[in-house]
Amino acid sequence: MGRISMSRMMAALADLGRQYLDRSPRLPPPEEAHRLCDALLGSEGEASGTALARELVVLLERMSEADRIAFIDMLANDYAPDPAALRAAANAWLADPSEDTYLVLARAVQSPRLDLLQRINMAPGGTAAMVRLREPLLELMRNRPELRVLDAEIRHLFTSWFNRGFLQFERIDWHTPAVVLEKLIAYEAVHEIYGWEDLRRRLGPDRRCFAFFHPTLPDEPLIFVEVALTRGIAAQIQPLIDIAAVAANDAAPDTAIFYSISNCQAGLTGISFGNFLIKQVVDALKTELPKIGTFATLSPIPGFCHWIDTVVARGPSDFLSEAEQAELVRPGWATDAARRAALEKTLMRLCAEYLVRASGNGRPLDPVARFHLGNGASIARINWEGDLSDKGLRQSAGLMVNYRYDPDEIVANHEAFVKDGRVAVSAQVRSLLPRRR
Amino acid sequence: MGRISMSRMMAALADLGRQYLDRSPRLPPPEEAHRLCDALLGSEGEASGTALARELVVLLERMSEADRIAFIDMLANDYAPDPAALRAAANAWLADPSEDTYLVLARAVQSPRLDLLQRINMAPGGTAAMVRLREPLLELMRNRPELRVLDAEIRHLFTSWFNRGFLQFERIDWHTPAVVLEKLIAYEAVHEIYGWEDLRRRLGPDRRCFAFFHPTLPDEPLIFVEVALTRGIAAQIQPLIDIAAVAANDAAPDTAIFYSISNCQAGLTGISFGNFLIKQVVDALKTELPKIGTFATLSPIPGFCHWIDTVVARGPSDFLSEAEQAELVRPGWATDAARRAALEKTLMRLCAEYLVRASGNGRPLDPVARFHLGNGASIARINWEGDLSDKGLRQSAGLMVNYRYDPDEIVANHEAFVKDGRVAVSAQVRSLLPRRR
Amino acid sequence: MGRISMSRMMAALADLGRQYLDRSPRLPPPEEAHRLCDALLGSEGEASGTALARELVVLLERMSEADRIAFIDMLANDYAPDPAALRAAANAWLADPSEDTYLVLARAVQSPRLDLLQRINMAPGGTAAMVRLREPLLELMRNRPELRVLDAEIRHLFTSWFNRGFLQFERIDWHTPAVVLEKLIAYEAVHEIYGWEDLRRRLGPDRRCFAFFHPTLPDEPLIFVEVALTRGIAAQIQPLIDIAAVAANDAAPDTAIFYSISNCQAGLTGISFGNFLIKQVVDALKTELPKIGTFATLSPIPGFCHWIDTVVARGPSDFLSEAEQAELVRPGWATDAARRAALEKTLMRLCAEYLVRASGNGRPLDPVARFHLGNGASIARINWEGDLSDKGLRQSAGLMVNYRYDPDEIVANHEAFVKDGRVAVSAQVRSLLPRRR
Amino acid sequence: MGRISMSRMMAALADLGRQYLDRSPRLPPPEEAHRLCDALLGSEGEASGTALARELVVLLERMSEADRIAFIDMLANDYAPDPAALRAAANAWLADPSEDTYLVLARAVQSPRLDLLQRINMAPGGTAAMVRLREPLLELMRNRPELRVLDAEIRHLFTSWFNRGFLQFERIDWHTPAVVLEKLIAYEAVHEIYGWEDLRRRLGPDRRCFAFFHPTLPDEPLIFVEVALTRGIAAQIQPLIDIAAVAANDAAPDTAIFYSISNCQAGLTGISFGNFLIKQVVDALKTELPKIGTFATLSPIPGFCHWIDTVVARGPSDFLSEAEQAELVRPGWATDAARRAALEKTLMRLCAEYLVRASGNGRPLDPVARFHLGNGASIARINWEGDLSDKGLRQSAGLMVNYRYDPDEIVANHEAFVKDGRVAVSAQVRSLLPRRR
Repeated sequence: MGRISMSRMMAALADLGRQYLDRSPRLPPPEEAHRLCDALLGSEGEASGTALARELVVLLERMSEADRIAFIDMLANDYAPDPAALRAAANAWLADPSEDTYLVLARAVQSPRLDLLQRINMAPGGTAAMVRLREPLLELMRNRPELRVLDAEIRHLFTSWFNRGFLQFERIDWHTPAVVLEKLIAYEAVHEIYGWEDLRRRLGPDRRCFAFFHPTLPDEPLIFVEVALTRGIAAQIQPLIDIAAVAANDAAPDTAIFYSISNCQAGLTGISFGNFLIKQVVDALKTELPKIGTFATLSPIPGFCHWIDTVVARGPSDFLSEAEQAELVRPGWATDAARRAALEKTLMRLCAEYLVRASGNGRPLDPVARFHLGNGASIARINWEGDLSDKGLRQSAGLMVNYRYDPDEIVANHEAFVKDGRVAVSAQVRSLLPRRR
Repeated sequence: MGRISMSRMMAALADLGRQYLDRSPRLPPPEEAHRLCDALLGSEGEASGTALARELVVLLERMSEADRIAFIDMLANDYAPDPAALRAAANAWLADPSEDTYLVLARAVQSPRLDLLQRINMAPGGTAAMVRLREPLLELMRNRPELRVLDAEIRHLFTSWFNRGFLQFERIDWHTPAVVLEKLIAYEAVHEIYGWEDLRRRLGPDRRCFAFFHPTLPDEPLIFVEVALTRGIAAQIQPLIDIAAVAANDAAPDTAIFYSISNCQAGLTGISFGNFLIKQVVDALKTELPKIGTFATLSPIPGFCHWIDTVVARGPSDFLSEAEQAELVRPGWATDAARRAALEKTLMRLCAEYLVRASGNGRPLDPVARFHLGNGASIARINWEGDLSDKGLRQSAGLMVNYRYDPDEIVANHEAFVKDGRVAVSAQVRSLLPRRR
Repeated sequence: MGRISMSRMMAALADLGRQYLDRSPRLPPPEEAHRLCDALLGSEGEASGTALARELVVLLERMSEADRIAFIDMLANDYAPDPAALRAAANAWLADPSEDTYLVLARAVQSPRLDLLQRINMAPGGTAAMVRLREPLLELMRNRPELRVLDAEIRHLFTSWFNRGFLQFERIDWHTPAVVLEKLIAYEAVHEIYGWEDLRRRLGPDRRCFAFFHPTLPDEPLIFVEVALTRGIAAQIQPLIDIAAVAANDAAPDTAIFYSISNCQAGLTGISFGNFLIKQVVDALKTELPKIGTFATLSPIPGFCHWIDTVVARGPSDFLSEAEQAELVRPGWATDAARRAALEKTLMRLCAEYLVRASGNGRPLDPVARFHLGNGASIARINWEGDLSDKGLRQSAGLMVNYRYDPDEIVANHEAFVKDGRVAVSAQVRSLLPRRR
Repeated sequence: MGRISMSRMMAALADLGRQYLDRSPRLPPPEEAHRLCDALLGSEGEASGTALARELVVLLERMSEADRIAFIDMLANDYAPDPAALRAAANAWLADPSEDTYLVLARAVQSPRLDLLQRINMAPGGTAAMVRLREPLLELMRNRPELRVLDAEIRHLFTSWFNRGFLQFERIDWHTPAVVLEKLIAYEAVHEIYGWEDLRRRLGPDRRCFAFFHPTLPDEPLIFVEVALTRGIAAQIQPLIDIAAVAANDAAPDTAIFYSISNCQAGLTGISFGNFLIKQVVDALKTELPKIGTFATLSPIPGFCHWIDTVVARGPSDFLSEAEQAELVRPGWATDAARRAALEKTLMRLCAEYLVRASGNGRPLDPVARFHLGNGASIARINWEGDLSDKGLRQSAGLMVNYRYDPDEIVANHEAFVKDGRVAVSAQVRSLLPRRR
């Protein structure tokens, strides 16, 4: 009966919803939701669980933001583990740590919520509804740390539901349904896609795009990566994303440049897919295009300028001359072409320092560096004037970096990074590193 | 990139396995598996988790029974929760039951196994491997109750992975791939299918067959149900499963008879799908064939003769005359046609008693009755000479029963059954019930 | 191995082409094509026909317009029937009209071209190449009637290849691949689609779009129709095509309005699909939406104003008063709102006259009327201010017409129309008809 | 709306048929068919052609053999070209051979049947119905040569409809729907398949099977080929078709053996697909398994023993000694193991003579040799005791032959064969050839 599209399903749910709403006197949405949750957990749930779950999912889809927050509170408060039972179970296990007491304890630790959420998931659209519900929860959590318990449980479920083994790896191109393609325009987080013509360019014959999907969210990519097939490692982003750009020459490409990776579902924050996606794409490209031998990113350096500001604010450092320090302390050097040009050598050196050595909690300061180095990539090249967009100039003075994924070195790089904090660096970048004075 | 078939995947895995095995000196399988599990849980797992998981899955597929048991023991012993950590966490929470201490406790209760099993699941075939692994585990558990902890965790995972929301409902007919159809022949548990010609009959135009599948086990039905479209409620099984049977008349069918439901995966014992499947089939048939108005089973009564034996062994009862008692205490009445015929009224009455009133722990003694009544069906009719096969005679003196699924009464029936132990019975069957003397 | 997309195929062909072009010295394209045609018809063609055909198709795809015309001339001249053989065969049959002489004559009438074109069709993209080749041929034919023979043969082949039995009927919606959707924007011939957002509106939940495809042109619709689901028969086009339009009310639609039908392939001119498409859409909608009871078009009246001009130019007519005549002879009445308003009754009357009675060669003058009445539709209603666009005002003073497809009357209407020239007209439109003075 | 299966379609047609048949008084089938044909060609056909065609197809499906023959006669007699019109057109063209007179002649040569058959083809199942209709026609033609005209027209249509460009090349394996697989069992013409277990073996991992399908006959292969992947060129058929056979060793295969090619549709006799299929399979295997370097058949030699009988009956020949002649003239040598063994050298030599030199009308006598040599294959090896089945012994004394398809030599072999009658022969086989005395 094939893959049923999300949107069609949602349209059907909306119809269904209307029908439910037409049913005479009913409760305000949060109370109605409470009633449905109770029914779903009670004996009624066994007989008509799917129908109840469907009704609840429809209700959730139509809830106002305020009602949604009320629903989250209800989940947090009314379906939490029973402290008395947990206390009894903990004491029983401590007194006699047998299999039996352990099993009772394990059950007591689990909140009724977990069961409830599993039952909601029986309905078409249930998974999607819960992914969306986590968005306001993540917002709320900033100020209400007690919600961490609820979030931990939801994340626990998501980790299981969105296990790598359940994800579907798919190529996206101009043959992909529009309902998916429009999500790319909406979700592209690194280099904005300006409408359908721009998207068409991004999916041209010298490009590849891949995504992970989940069986229950068929029209919703979870994460996607955009790849350009090039001769040599690309040093600049503008030629790649220029809508008018065409494959410069007919020479067969030898390099795949990952120039944009976007997570699509805010509700899945903390469930990581990027690592798996990059490796699967490397495999897919090696199979399709055996002549591609080099796999690298062309990545932004989002924290670079901010780090320089912090460094110079701290006063003299052992890798800046006084003149450099004086120049950098004066704002505007990143966006002023002349000043920037004069700083080229300085900035290249600082960037190597920033990427290779600047760290917090033993890990690279730069979040993009952290991600790729943690995946086993190496820092291959720093590119002057790699991104001359406003954003590029402001965040990294136009510099970009290539992280390289060498299939033969990924594991070793990763292990060295995780165990010893060692960063894999090319000779070229190493030579930029400032000598400690 | 579409649905990749399990068998093709398994073939690919076998190839892969050969390749791994070709790699020089290696450990005995259980030790190698241990090494891989450690690697998978360690930092290596983050870099190349999918590859390690794949290697482990291949190894599991090729293991001898003995090695498989050794592997189960290893899981049970070496990846259990750390008692010291759990003790500390339990005490901390008891001393100060805050969110923080709760989260620590919840984590300490969870064994490393859970994480390990989730990581194994990243590999293609991982889910299948674990479903298969549970088969010997269930065997072992009979004599080794301490394995219940491991099994509880696996069942916990399976409950999440095989959530109704992830199951795919599919019609099975002569257009279904042979790789799936042969599973029907293998798994049919109620009325054996004797080869492909017999199967073809079961999938004829006056039949329907539906199954649940899971995205990661594309060639493996989880459960399937066989349906015959008839005029009126069928009273006998032989005409339905006779290979030479043809639709008797051209009159449009008005009834759907569910005459066989088979669970396919022993490793999923305890994860129930039947309830959902029957309801979904009712919905599917109502849509496809609006003229079908009656949905009923034609079911065996597996415990009937055994129960009579127990009853008569106990001596006089208030629903048996002395003559009946005397006759039934003499073995052979069920399979001797003449004696059976003489007992028709008695047996019909006893069967009503058995199905409606005989109970243990407040639930019907008969397992099939328990299943359908629990789902909200009612006992519609008891059929004399419903199943004259050897098995049918031996287990129920040839009697069969129709349970009826009336969409309008399912919820009410279920609730009455669960809350008050009330069994929904047709007037016809009620009239058979013995008057208490 | 599934449906292979046209564009992917074309990309592959382009690659292939490059490879062929890289092969050293070769002939100018038309001569090279001649060589390939000869090889294809000769013994070489039996051994490697598909490869030769592929090479020829690639060559055709890359030809300049001039070369393409040279190729058409070559087909017309060098692969025509052999007059001597035809003369001999005709004489032989005339002398002795037996099966044998007939078969020889039938073969002699057929030109070698037919065989050649069939062989070109063996290559992927062959059908598409020939459909495109017919475009310049149709242009050339206007001034060179001798090309009619070639065209008749190509049309003969196309009639066979594009037989209704080979067409695939598909619904088009937002789940359709972008590569097909962009064709809708390109090919919409009645009410222009202004980009993707506009297209999205046209494919909204209260809309339907259906098309015919051919197996060898998977990304190319042959014809498509746009349908709006409404309450009652729509009288105005602007509310339907307004990009901001939303379904006005929640009431379930009872009417399907066909508001745009576009043929997509100029090369298939004369091979008609519209008749089949409309009837199939009626069937599809009756199945999907049983509550839809009325099927009608909202159609332009492209020849209306031109016909009025012709009528008034001819002088007094028996259905125009002198005042009307005087007003209509003065240009500008169609686009001047005040003058038009004053003419409402006159124009409605004239429009009924034009659609029902104005004819040439015994068929309605208006091409759209000719099409729908020939299909068995009736004239249901004439709508004042149905299309206030510039084009609508200029061609029909803003009037539009609904043709109604009543499944129960299509055959009778069609027969009456074809045999007796009788036009099916609603009472409403009939009442508008001018009394003959 | 996807691919709709033939069987489902046929079931639907049967339903439809029942409904038509329920309609009160109707004509005997052939007369009813005549009425429908007339309606289809008349004006009614334009309005409701598809419905009429569908009705006719249903009627054809349900016709008795006798009615079917009556229908063929009707087609032959009542829808033939009009001799008067043809005569007039022929004379007009002879008098003035212009485009206009040619077009009239071309139209007059075409019989109304052609148009009729094209219209029947509009219905679902129309193509299938006509393919089936040609089966009795081919039978009848043997004794009624006047039917050749009708058959020529049908073949003309089929050539167009079953053009290589419209065929779909598909791999067949254990994932193929049963409705297709059962056709393999039914249609295998070379080495019988004994049921499903045997079929399963033929589709094992060391095997490949490919077929051509046509879009309108989705469940019906047109032709299929069975391939074994082996080390070296297989010399014996029994090990390949033994149901218990397993891939002997783990060594990667380097050779693809085409051991069975079966045409499936008797109604398509004379429309050849085999040539295309073999070449496409070679391409597919080169892509899937780049290590396969050799492509060869393991073929029967159906005419060998019969040819020897003819040769020895003729008396002394220049490649047989008197002793050989004496032995071979005595029946039974082919099936008597001892006599056959004594003749090994003689038979090998004779087989080379038979395959390489024995010809009729300038083409090889052996039909299988004719097919493969005509396709550009070479005779690679003659195998003693290649097929020890009864059939193998009787037709070729157990000998089999490998024809080799070397992608680099196919065209040259074919051209030499077609132009000069030259047969490509390996050195090994050449060395067997008898020296002319």
